Amino acid sequence: MSACRISFEPGEREVVVPEGTDLFSAAIAAGVRLYSSCASEGVCGRCRVIVRQGKVATEPTGRLTNEERRAGYVLACRTTVQGDVQVEVPPESRMEWEQILTEEAKITRLAGLFSQAEEVEKGIELEGRELFTYSPLSTKLFLRLPTPTLSDNISDLERLYREVRRHRKIPLMQTGLANVRKLGRLLRESNWEVTVTLGQRNGTTEVVLIEPGDTSRRNYGVFLDIGTTTVVASLVDLDSRRVLGTKATHNPQSGYGEDVITRIIYAEKEEGLEKLHHAVVDTINEMISALAMVNGISLNEVTAAVGAGNMTMAHLLLRVDPSYIRRNPYVPTANFMPVIRAAEAGIKINPRGLLACLPGVSSFVGGDITAGVLASGIDEAERPAMLIDLGTNGEIVLGNREWLVCCSASAGPAFEGSGVRCGVRAMQGAIQKVEIDPQTCEVWWAAIGGARPVGVCGSGYIDVLAELFKAGVIDRQGMIRTGISSPRVREGDEGSEFVLVWAAHSVTGRDITVAQTDIENLIRSKGAIYAAAKVLVEKMGMSFDEIDKIYIGGGFGNYLNIGKAIWIGLLPDLPLDRFEFIGNSSLSGARMALLSHEALVKAHEIAERMTNLELCAEPAYMREYVGALFLPHTDADLFPSVMQNLERMSPCPARSL
Amino acid sequence: MSACRISFEPGEREVVVPEGTDLFSAAIAAGVRLYSSCASEGVCGRCRVIVRQGKVATEPTGRLTNEERRAGYVLACRTTVQGDVQVEVPPESRMEWEQILTEEAKITRLAGLFSQAEEVEKGIELEGRELFTYSPLSTKLFLRLPTPTLSDNISDLERLYREVRRHRKIPLMQTGLANVRKLGRLLRESNWEVTVTLGQRNGTTEVVLIEPGDTSRRNYGVFLDIGTTTVVASLVDLDSRRVLGTKATHNPQSGYGEDVITRIIYAEKEEGLEKLHHAVVDTINEMISALAMVNGISLNEVTAAVGAGNMTMAHLLLRVDPSYIRRNPYVPTANFMPVIRAAEAGIKINPRGLLACLPGVSSFVGGDITAGVLASGIDEAERPAMLIDLGTNGEIVLGNREWLVCCSASAGPAFEGSGVRCGVRAMQGAIQKVEIDPQTCEVWWAAIGGARPVGVCGSGYIDVLAELFKAGVIDRQGMIRTGISSPRVREGDEGSEFVLVWAAHSVTGRDITVAQTDIENLIRSKGAIYAAAKVLVEKMGMSFDEIDKIYIGGGFGNYLNIGKAIWIGLLPDLPLDRFEFIGNSSLSGARMALLSHEALVKAHEIAERMTNLELCAEPAYMREYVGALFLPHTDADLFPSVMQNLERMSPCPARSL
Repeated sequence: MSACRISFEPGEREVVVPEGTDLFSAAIAAGVRLYSSCASEGVCGRCRVIVRQGKVATEPTGRLTNEERRAGYVLACRTTVQGDVQVEVPPESRMEWEQILTEEAKITRLAGLFSQAEEVEKGIELEGRELFTYSPLSTKLFLRLPTPTLSDNISDLERLYREVRRHRKIPLMQTGLANVRKLGRLLRESNWEVTVTLGQRNGTTEVVLIEPGDTSRRNYGVFLDIGTTTVVASLVDLDSRRVLGTKATHNPQSGYGEDVITRIIYAEKEEGLEKLHHAVVDTINEMISALAMVNGISLNEVTAAVGAGNMTMAHLLLRVDPSYIRRNPYVPTANFMPVIRAAEAGIKINPRGLLACLPGVSSFVGGDITAGVLASGIDEAERPAMLIDLGTNGEIVLGNREWLVCCSASAGPAFEGSGVRCGVRAMQGAIQKVEIDPQTCEVWWAAIGGARPVGVCGSGYIDVLAELFKAGVIDRQGMIRTGISSPRVREGDEGSEFVLVWAAHSVTGRDITVAQTDIENLIRSKGAIYAAAKVLVEKMGMSFDEIDKIYIGGGFGNYLNIGKAIWIGLLPDLPLDRFEFIGNSSLSGARMALLSHEALVKAHEIAERMTNLELCAEPAYMREYVGALFLPHTDADLFPSVMQNLERMSPCPARSL
Repeated sequence: MSACRISFEPGEREVVVPEGTDLFSAAIAAGVRLYSSCASEGVCGRCRVIVRQGKVATEPTGRLTNEERRAGYVLACRTTVQGDVQVEVPPESRMEWEQILTEEAKITRLAGLFSQAEEVEKGIELEGRELFTYSPLSTKLFLRLPTPTLSDNISDLERLYREVRRHRKIPLMQTGLANVRKLGRLLRESNWEVTVTLGQRNGTTEVVLIEPGDTSRRNYGVFLDIGTTTVVASLVDLDSRRVLGTKATHNPQSGYGEDVITRIIYAEKEEGLEKLHHAVVDTINEMISALAMVNGISLNEVTAAVGAGNMTMAHLLLRVDPSYIRRNPYVPTANFMPVIRAAEAGIKINPRGLLACLPGVSSFVGGDITAGVLASGIDEAERPAMLIDLGTNGEIVLGNREWLVCCSASAGPAFEGSGVRCGVRAMQGAIQKVEIDPQTCEVWWAAIGGARPVGVCGSGYIDVLAELFKAGVIDRQGMIRTGISSPRVREGDEGSEFVLVWAAHSVTGRDITVAQTDIENLIRSKGAIYAAAKVLVEKMGMSFDEIDKIYIGGGFGNYLNIGKAIWIGLLPDLPLDRFEFIGNSSLSGARMALLSHEALVKAHEIAERMTNLELCAEPAYMREYVGALFLPHTDADLFPSVMQNLERMSPCPARSL
């Protein structure tokens, strides 16, 4: 078998692989990241590339139009090389991690942790809510030990502990043999001036590191949001409390499966778990390393990491078999993962640095949701509040300071810009706002960063669905009406479609469209979430009216139009001021748990307090779900303001048909 | 350089080594153990062997008599091979570890731990002293977990913890990632029936192991006394509480130095620490392995080990640099060693099994002494009691339930049968009892096991010194009187000597003698210990009279003649019923700490409570020491009963001179 030289443009990446290798594997080997969400099964059609030169063998696929095939488009995963090949990766297939937007919740609980140390020490309350004390997962403490004398010759370790306890109240302190082994010489060579790193570890305080001299100002931590589709990492200076930088990227595990279920199935294959584990860990390491480098920080100075992710992500991060998550009765291996050395999970920070994961509640309500509750503070609300996290799974928490219930609905990845034809994450060039003129069917759109559009992200799709509905382009069942006299409404390869952006204006050079199947996906997604929320509320003998506040979390970048989410029946029909969009609350919760051990303890309490409702065991759920597959809902009475507005609206050309 | 075949007899051991190799190294390579206490410097003269055939180069040495040299004796460490060589190892040079006797203390506290579980659970008190609860360092617990259902689908780990907590009250429970990783599959493959091993670790309870099925009856532990000269290991069934076997051997570190100071100096050489560490660990592993094999136990079933040793031994066991122990102000690295995985110290039991070391107090009062206090129970005595541990260092503890003080005196290894010409450990063939007829100077002796004598052990030397003194062979300064008309008193190579056993009766085929230098060594040893005890008592403003009980510990096999120890001024002149010989109290304490976590906690309290007195900072000590270099003491008033007896005794031929 001969070796083939494969080059990828743009970026001038090159790799030599054996003849017969598929282009997707070659891309990975060359460090080029392609979208994929079907584990290279040729199903998702996301890994399209253009063969510019060279001989390949490619399988037939319905995912490419004839025109595309003529232009050289192939699916990388279904194409094997038969010689040297030059490949062009079109923008829509390229995963570029610098561009994803991340926005954390602007919330009181979190804000407090970033106020000046002095204020916090005074116990200042922000907006009436008591703050968590600043007490990171790992702190450094500079110690000047008294030199031993004949009348004070306790052992080195006891001397160290004694001095630590002069500064901190620590009942249970421990350290590893590695530190004991180097202690004697270290103390004497550093003239009895050392810095200890104290880590909070499973109910005890561990002396994680002992370093010569005063390095107490050089202590850094990382907090992570490990989502099914997106991974976000932030580096924080644990001395000054400043966030030094944030990076986000697509979770490369997507290549092995779009949603958690497909990934679990992949994990069950030989070496599957290892591959998924390394995929996400390598990505996290890349991000941490890049963040550290830019800020002139050595990885040895990073002593703590906190991660929040759903249950499957947490299992894969720690290389724990997730098989049983997907099997009735849906049991994860551990909701509460022990605090471990980050190195045990392959995370490259200081080799003795710690890694904590936010605890979860059940197989489908994970640490990201606990983080969301922590960040939103509904666990201490006086009146009932709700958290809706819109992701590939939609998780919902309802409760107050006395009780907390939660559930998870499989919503599909549409709101994360996946599983829909032109979907992209909330990144540079993603359309996030859309308005459609009911009279002309003309479209006004706004893409993130003011860039030329690449595709549509979750918040864009909510707008699209609402606007198509308002404009009468689709009916209450979501069907594109026939006979609308606009060139934007047309028949495409896969049925009716609506052209959002003409090819001339898009980065890809192709029309950005919304297909009938996309609309159906979006309606299923919104229906699943609304139904879940309704079942949860009714299970508690309540109605939506009684909910004081609804927090919306999810990876929507910095924008979500609540009004339009109500229009499509995704959110209940309540006054807008009852909603608060808190962005990536998983990331915010992870940050809080990193910065305050009290917050991490609180997260444990929250996870313990939350009662999980398995929707699959609720007969009401399927009924509610079916009812929600309309716009806004089968039962129009549930959305009085939407129906009122619909009636008030002047007839548009579409509707007048 | 050519290869030489070296054979050792008896035992038919053979090894091939390069020309120029010394015989000591060749013996080690062949698995033959020779005595040595000078780190192969040719000083101690213990490694004598007989070259039967072959060419060697040997250095001149004063450690061999001309007669011995003619018979082929050489010092193995000072003799290099120049071709194939046949070596005979005489009995006195051979270390044979099966023969050392070990006797534990027969004490209430310990006895309780071995009574039936039911009795202990009823809280029975033995002889009025409350017992420790049976709660070993590691326990196994068989669990039948309820199978998860949709209404009870907490995570696997929480299910396990919940079930453990139904049996045990455990506030802080943790487990390692390795266990989490295998948990899901293990629980299901074992049909939800598993055995957990719970370990007591630094204030938390660790789930050390999770095994399928019910293995709760197969749980074993090891307790160790790691002495400077002797290492003892016992295997105990943690289910039935039975001790299954005990092995003892000479600490092979002796090859690198007789006492702790020489070993610390050796540890400072390149690779020195590693060599000392491996020497003792390999020996411990051999013993554990042999004990396990004999009892049909797999090493994986041994889940816990507890060791007691002096501070230097503890450091070397854990491969912690002991350098600073010997340097003013005498600071060990750690008095309280963390509970670690035994594997971290190289101890071969279950790879996740735990190792705890009894805590020490100072550089020269180590875990063996804490163990002794624990075993003797003087920490709970109402009236002042004393513990004297006679070893290479003599450690003394004085106190009661309210206070504890301790000190350590460098006594030299004479009472361990070392550093004296014909000294041996308390092993098969060691003379442990001696009587000398004052009229005839004839000697009656008894060797351990009724065997032909090999040499004299510590208790034998105490008898020898007392009897020589009583018989008038030596005067109050310890000088062998001149002109005694007995063939047993003669001039030897190194001055005057007394023949205890004629060559015809000894195993070695040589006379067993006590030299003038031996007597001087013994007097220095006893003087150091008596002076230390006196300084400690007077420091507390007391006199010996006020001490209610004196416990004597040490490696004396099963015999120590208290009366004769008083005769030579080693022990204070008190009524005999105030003394109790408790044997190897270090081993007993280690056993208690293994069998009862309460006892281990108590050991920590004891170590924390003990106030250490540095004798080198006590001006009174040197004065007392010099005063004690007489028999029984310079100040005869301190030993009224001895002086009275001396006066009453009829003149013997020796004294009549």
